Amino acid sequence: MPKLDLDAIPEIQRTGYPEPYRGAVAGRNYRRLADAAGLTDFGVNICRLEPGAWSSQRHWHSKEDEFVMMISGEAVLITDAGETVMRPGDCAAFPAGLADAHHLVNRSDADAVFLVVGSDKADDACTYPDIDMHLPRGDGGFTRKDGTPW
Amino acid sequence: MPKLDLDAIPEIQRTGYPEPYRGAVAGRNYRRLADAAGLTDFGVNICRLEPGAWSSQRHWHSKEDEFVMMISGEAVLITDAGETVMRPGDCAAFPAGLADAHHLVNRSDADAVFLVVGSDKADDACTYPDIDMHLPRGDGGFTRKDGTPW
Repeated sequence: MPKLDLDAIPEIQRTGYPEPYRGAVAGRNYRRLADAAGLTDFGVNICRLEPGAWSSQRHWHSKEDEFVMMISGEAVLITDAGETVMRPGDCAAFPAGLADAHHLVNRSDADAVFLVVGSDKADDACTYPDIDMHLPRGDGGFTRKDGTPW
Repeated sequence: MPKLDLDAIPEIQRTGYPEPYRGAVAGRNYRRLADAAGLTDFGVNICRLEPGAWSSQRHWHSKEDEFVMMISGEAVLITDAGETVMRPGDCAAFPAGLADAHHLVNRSDADAVFLVVGSDKADDACTYPDIDMHLPRGDGGFTRKDGTPW
């Protein structure tokens, strides 16, 4: 059946972030649903943020669209425009190329779970305005702002 | 803010299905989130099925991936393999080219609401095994099985 057995999809904690930027996502756990189901046109993850965890460093993508929907718990969405609380059923969209960096932060004392959908482009660049980190290509490694590799 | 005001996105009831295949989706209402938010890499709809409504005629896509997650209520997922009930948080995936037709049917007496994500390919063909209808191209019109237009 195409219905997914979510419990059978391993929950992973993985990041390519260098130190000192890894700690913020140490409590970020995710299941890669699209990979498990054989979807390739877009990625679908269910992400569980433990209390205090961030979804990512605040960022925006040059070529990749992103979409999130809260499933349970609540998290704070932070962008250049400010902060807003995301509760179950709330949705947010981040069009490719819109230079407004975003992330979700779990300031509650319970898990916050959300669905995230994104495209995957080899020529994407990811910009992190708050820190000395940059991702010049979707398939490349992290650099400092001056282009030197981490 | 990138958080979407879902109430501000119009709920539409629209189908290109010819008679006699339109009635099954008469109680299908959806909001086109990706369009409203300026996402183009994939489509995102929130679909609300009134009691008795179908998500679509049972179908599969040659080139387009699909993903659904139930948000509220429940619906029955029907595929070649049989039937399974989808409840809030349940997810299902339909990889492009997998010749196992699917749809969701609301047999309950309350609304069933789900999120659906899909890609959009001009060279997609959509097959409807149960009825005399075919969609030979993603940007084309419906035909009968013998290729004559509806």
